[in-house]
Amino acid sequence: MNATSRDFEAYLQARQADFVAELAEFLSIPSVSAAPEHFGDVERAAAWVAERLKKAGLEHAEVLHAGRYPMVYADWLKVPGAPTVLIYGHFDVQPADPVEAWTRPPFAPTVVGGRIYARGASDDKGNMFAPILALEALLRTRGRLPVNVKLLFEGQEEILSPDLPVFVAEHRERLACDMAFSADGWQWSETEGDLRMGLRGICALEITVHGPKADLHSGVHGGAVANPIHALAALMAGLRDADGRVAVPDFYREVRALSEEERRLIAAVPFDEAKYRVQVGVEELAGETGFTPRERIGARPTLEINGISGGYVGAGVKTVLPSTASAKITCRLVPDQDPAVIAARVRDHLVKQAPRGVRVEVEILPNAGHPYLIPMDHPANRAARDVLVELYGREPYYTRSGGSIPILDLFRRELGVYTVVFGFGLPDENFHGPDEFLRLSSFRLGQLAYGLLIDRIAEISASA
Amino acid sequence: MNATSRDFEAYLQARQADFVAELAEFLSIPSVSAAPEHFGDVERAAAWVAERLKKAGLEHAEVLHAGRYPMVYADWLKVPGAPTVLIYGHFDVQPADPVEAWTRPPFAPTVVGGRIYARGASDDKGNMFAPILALEALLRTRGRLPVNVKLLFEGQEEILSPDLPVFVAEHRERLACDMAFSADGWQWSETEGDLRMGLRGICALEITVHGPKADLHSGVHGGAVANPIHALAALMAGLRDADGRVAVPDFYREVRALSEEERRLIAAVPFDEAKYRVQVGVEELAGETGFTPRERIGARPTLEINGISGGYVGAGVKTVLPSTASAKITCRLVPDQDPAVIAARVRDHLVKQAPRGVRVEVEILPNAGHPYLIPMDHPANRAARDVLVELYGREPYYTRSGGSIPILDLFRRELGVYTVVFGFGLPDENFHGPDEFLRLSSFRLGQLAYGLLIDRIAEISASA
Repeated sequence: MNATSRDFEAYLQARQADFVAELAEFLSIPSVSAAPEHFGDVERAAAWVAERLKKAGLEHAEVLHAGRYPMVYADWLKVPGAPTVLIYGHFDVQPADPVEAWTRPPFAPTVVGGRIYARGASDDKGNMFAPILALEALLRTRGRLPVNVKLLFEGQEEILSPDLPVFVAEHRERLACDMAFSADGWQWSETEGDLRMGLRGICALEITVHGPKADLHSGVHGGAVANPIHALAALMAGLRDADGRVAVPDFYREVRALSEEERRLIAAVPFDEAKYRVQVGVEELAGETGFTPRERIGARPTLEINGISGGYVGAGVKTVLPSTASAKITCRLVPDQDPAVIAARVRDHLVKQAPRGVRVEVEILPNAGHPYLIPMDHPANRAARDVLVELYGREPYYTRSGGSIPILDLFRRELGVYTVVFGFGLPDENFHGPDEFLRLSSFRLGQLAYGLLIDRIAEISASA
Repeated sequence: MNATSRDFEAYLQARQADFVAELAEFLSIPSVSAAPEHFGDVERAAAWVAERLKKAGLEHAEVLHAGRYPMVYADWLKVPGAPTVLIYGHFDVQPADPVEAWTRPPFAPTVVGGRIYARGASDDKGNMFAPILALEALLRTRGRLPVNVKLLFEGQEEILSPDLPVFVAEHRERLACDMAFSADGWQWSETEGDLRMGLRGICALEITVHGPKADLHSGVHGGAVANPIHALAALMAGLRDADGRVAVPDFYREVRALSEEERRLIAAVPFDEAKYRVQVGVEELAGETGFTPRERIGARPTLEINGISGGYVGAGVKTVLPSTASAKITCRLVPDQDPAVIAARVRDHLVKQAPRGVRVEVEILPNAGHPYLIPMDHPANRAARDVLVELYGREPYYTRSGGSIPILDLFRRELGVYTVVFGFGLPDENFHGPDEFLRLSSFRLGQLAYGLLIDRIAEISASA
């Protein structure tokens, strides 16, 4: 890489304390997209991002809307003929509940031991702020960028971006680019890079089992009237077979078989099962037989019940035979599963299996994302790989993640570009759980990485 | 029956408006025994009952305690040689949740269309108030009672009377009697009496399935780590077989087979299945094959899941693989099942069936009651039957109820007496559900019935 490419680094190093203070301010906004009572906070977070983009020297910063959720766009487009790079991230966060499980308040950020603790620190506010600061450093140091840049940050990623497809389709011209990078991701460890080749898709359903028209006394009526909780338990238990496979007809029909080469690449990624068991706190792992844990997480589809409820669960005993019971389900999908098709198969199966005496209602939720795989030799992938080699002094691992980032497939379909996942959090940072945090060292590394990436894209483009 | 036996009726008729106002005051106390935040209200209800007993002319009215819950005792013991009758009821009530399902506020009683609406109106405040008013009428009309009377009202029936066995054992002398009547029950219809021969016993358990030590992201970890909701669903689904039988080893071992005579008596009780389906709001009934709905409810044991919870059940989607999931279970028991034995069998079975990758914890809850059957020709039963024939002009039905009143078996074991269930609510009054109510006509009938009952016991005793 070019010997002068780190000229912007001093700018970043001199301002880390200010940047951390700004990040803390950003994290103190409880922008929980799943909770209607926080819609105003999601808007506040959007306004904060737009202001910060202007301050960084980016142009046309603007808050737009996709459905009821805000989006923030900005750009810097002053190098005719050079490639245009789209950088993506999100400023909404997961709910903080159970709040009582947090050691520190989720929306009053605390810096302890080189880490900043808050909901959204790692997923994704810290990660999405890094490229903004990188661009500011390049602009302030050199007065210009070597390529054209567009930035798009969304406020509905944690509810799986229901209104984004229409938004991207409507703004296809404004978002047009040659490649994209997502700041929503993480590296392997403090010393090892991770180039994510694939992410799973997702579909979501909610099932409600309806029994008697009102809650009944379980003594007076138990034995004559079907209990919706029993019916729901039977339906849920029937969703997996004894081998841990999803027991929905044709669930696996379109799943690509793993090639030997793919299995080899996955096996090359280090995985300490004993350490992982301690990390998550279980005595043994579980899942589909015939596949390794990494294959099961990254390259095989799953069906998980995310929540279940019915009847009385307060203190003491209430002898109720409830009127309804319900559950929320998400499936993680791999190529070439289509979320709408799989959701419909799960729904149809559940309705068909409805036990006697109850009525089963299944709603397919709007939250959906297609599975994603980027070609190994894609130019954006190469630029990212070169930066990771520069930063870590070794090849990154080539991995597949079990999570879902619907926008990756969306950009490919609507904008015709591949997106490289390029974030600098680490996997132990409790995203989606209590005590989420981000290492300040990762925050700094992300800023440097995006500066190097912009230069590397310009170099690869010039030499092409 | 004696021609002068209704001399007290005019006293009751003249005061119904006052009695209803008093009942409304009693119902406005939210004496929910299951909720620690209402412990003070349970005490307030006890104090109200003790005061009302004194006002009725009963003696030695006193608030005692069984564990942390209040009891109220009073008596009138001035007829040496005459039988002593114990009258029982309870002033605690079920929780009112879901409160949003109520048409009227549960603790602000409303009189509409000859009914009083409030939590506890039928179960059991209205029913337990009736004998107090009957005794007052007898005492004010005649200055004396023809038999000795003791009254015992408890504040923990709705949590299945955990501390009552010790209390009754400790107060065996004070509670000594020849027969007992429970004002916690109901009649068949506005025109038909119901003599309850048997009630089911009960045991209660809570199961918690422990998975990872904290909630995990279901995309990042789903496929490798067992999901406690799936494990719980499988365990709960496995508790019943395809014939609706409880699939716990030896669950039915001590169950008495139904005789042809018992099946005939049960079949003689009218049961309009179509009407019942409309009443509870289901399209078809369900339960153990080989038995009629009435047999399944009254004479066969059941296992019902009363509540289930786990993961995220708020608005929207949260892709969580939760740390725990739990359920509450009660079994209804018939002669000769022992609640402690059955609870232990259910617990042991669940623990043994624990799926891979999770830990199953089962707690046997203190709430327990033995099943109960009164002999057909018992004198207390005969007195009650005669009053019901007098009131309704026809034989009552001889039924078995699916509910549990632990005190019935307790009185038999500790006091050596049988207890007749003698309450005047009706089965459609939404006890344990939203919009509970009591017909004011039933309230009046209960007052008259208890007055007639006291006289009839004296007559049967004198002629013996």
